Amino acid sequence: MYKTIVGVIGSSQAGEEEAEIAKKVGREIAKREYVLLTGARGGVMKAACIGAKSEGGLTLGILPFSKKTKANRYTDIVIPTGMGSTRNSLNTLTADYIIVVGGGSGTLSEIAFAWMYNKPILAFSGVKGWSTKLAGKQLDDKRKDHIIPVETAKEALNCIYRHETSKER
Amino acid sequence: MYKTIVGVIGSSQAGEEEAEIAKKVGREIAKREYVLLTGARGGVMKAACIGAKSEGGLTLGILPFSKKTKANRYTDIVIPTGMGSTRNSLNTLTADYIIVVGGGSGTLSEIAFAWMYNKPILAFSGVKGWSTKLAGKQLDDKRKDHIIPVETAKEALNCIYRHETSKER
Amino acid sequence: MYKTIVGVIGSSQAGEEEAEIAKKVGREIAKREYVLLTGARGGVMKAACIGAKSEGGLTLGILPFSKKTKANRYTDIVIPTGMGSTRNSLNTLTADYIIVVGGGSGTLSEIAFAWMYNKPILAFSGVKGWSTKLAGKQLDDKRKDHIIPVETAKEALNCIYRHETSKER
Amino acid sequence: MYKTIVGVIGSSQAGEEEAEIAKKVGREIAKREYVLLTGARGGVMKAACIGAKSEGGLTLGILPFSKKTKANRYTDIVIPTGMGSTRNSLNTLTADYIIVVGGGSGTLSEIAFAWMYNKPILAFSGVKGWSTKLAGKQLDDKRKDHIIPVETAKEALNCIYRHETSKER
Repeated sequence: MYKTIVGVIGSSQAGEEEAEIAKKVGREIAKREYVLLTGARGGVMKAACIGAKSEGGLTLGILPFSKKTKANRYTDIVIPTGMGSTRNSLNTLTADYIIVVGGGSGTLSEIAFAWMYNKPILAFSGVKGWSTKLAGKQLDDKRKDHIIPVETAKEALNCIYRHETSKER
Repeated sequence: MYKTIVGVIGSSQAGEEEAEIAKKVGREIAKREYVLLTGARGGVMKAACIGAKSEGGLTLGILPFSKKTKANRYTDIVIPTGMGSTRNSLNTLTADYIIVVGGGSGTLSEIAFAWMYNKPILAFSGVKGWSTKLAGKQLDDKRKDHIIPVETAKEALNCIYRHETSKER
Repeated sequence: MYKTIVGVIGSSQAGEEEAEIAKKVGREIAKREYVLLTGARGGVMKAACIGAKSEGGLTLGILPFSKKTKANRYTDIVIPTGMGSTRNSLNTLTADYIIVVGGGSGTLSEIAFAWMYNKPILAFSGVKGWSTKLAGKQLDDKRKDHIIPVETAKEALNCIYRHETSKER
Repeated sequence: MYKTIVGVIGSSQAGEEEAEIAKKVGREIAKREYVLLTGARGGVMKAACIGAKSEGGLTLGILPFSKKTKANRYTDIVIPTGMGSTRNSLNTLTADYIIVVGGGSGTLSEIAFAWMYNKPILAFSGVKGWSTKLAGKQLDDKRKDHIIPVETAKEALNCIYRHETSKER
């Protein structure tokens, strides 16, 4: 039966601060035994994968390129789409939850898709980029909830865990 | 040789004000003999198509659905992708310029793609939605230019015309 | 209202014989005032575009690449998908009819999609490649009709014309 | 580091004979500790998943639909593309090897993509559909190898195992 998948999005050229957060997030995802999904590239994506693998987690990556070997090597299962950034939509469709760490225009497109696809979005505030700008906001009036602001990896995963267990009831 | 394509994006449930703007924009695009590109649906998209057809323009539509007949009937050439909102990326790749009239999360994803793909973006300020919020802004530091704020259809098309003629020199 | 679109598919490395056929097919498509759709590359695709433009036709091209300038220059309207061969599906969804001239594995994927999408398929017999192998055949039992064998461009377009006029009644 | 992924393709309306083969193939894939990839639907796909899960394997499914719940329940990791049959290309890009069990036009499109993407293809001969028709054949002259005919699940997986171990040397 379907495993729960948590997507972590952010820049492939993230700074140290975002990478550190992403690593912790990856670790917490693995501890909860969720599958980590990223875009399989560097920066935030690679850091999250390293975190998840350090806890023995399973990592899934949806790559813009058609060659698997362009995925970061901490990705267990690579989907090499060859579709360029058009694959951003697929990442958010695949994730059951989206955690945003900073991010530029590519990340912004993914936040917009996640909102359209009705996925819960958790955004780190206090880092540079779109996660801070949109934390606590709504993108339009099609949803009643907000992008959930988070400050630590534990807080983000606790929030997802509560959501998951409330579904099961 | 390749025709210049101008994309008009905005909500499929636009209000009267945005529809009126989109219609004028469609008309000006046709007068300049550019091809109008939309997402082939209702609201801003349909209004722009009606405007372009009223001036004898050519209209191209990239549809999320796989059935052509779901396109608005003012679309001459329909690309029925069957890819859902994943097609948002293709619209912005296809357009040489993007004009934004209001818009919700779907439009936001297209603005983000247009920025990534380095397309000039013109955004109507003074209407509800993302075009007003982002007019004059940058989405990240990968580009040096800004999303260009515009207030009238003529102004938008004059701006595009200047850009086109400067390329030819 | 939607224009009728006729897709011409075949190899980007076609020999002279196939190119000659494709050119004639492009010409006949333009004479009937249908829009020609190709994959916007060389070989059969370019030859068909040259034929259509020689009769003042309109040419549409759905490109695997993300840069418009990689389209052959006889393509009026370029859709640069950046999706690689994944775009083969979109070509056949967009065409109302598919004409096959020879072709290798890429063309075979498009024939398969055209069959799935229930598009009438006309295949030149007597040339090297998949059009000859599959002319007169069925790909599976989901359809009752066959891939229609044709020998001349005129015959192919007459067949499409009859089909179109029978729909209008 | 990237896990080896073996794709099993065939009809969603497969008969008992093909389903039985697919189940055995799924089992052997799991025994070798490869990841099983399918289109996440019924017929051959579901049977392969059941086989793999019976041996504790990991199953990955790339779905044409946008709702995960349309995947068969033996799929652990679901990629809900929402792209319809356009996703056929992604399945073959993701798989390192393709095993074909029967199949109609959808399967044919996937064989064609697998050939283009230079993936080793193993085809069951002796069942109804495209796997039998193309076993031992070449789709065009871009590759020197052939579609490998196989008759049992063990034979197919032994062949893949030899290929994998020869790469490692």
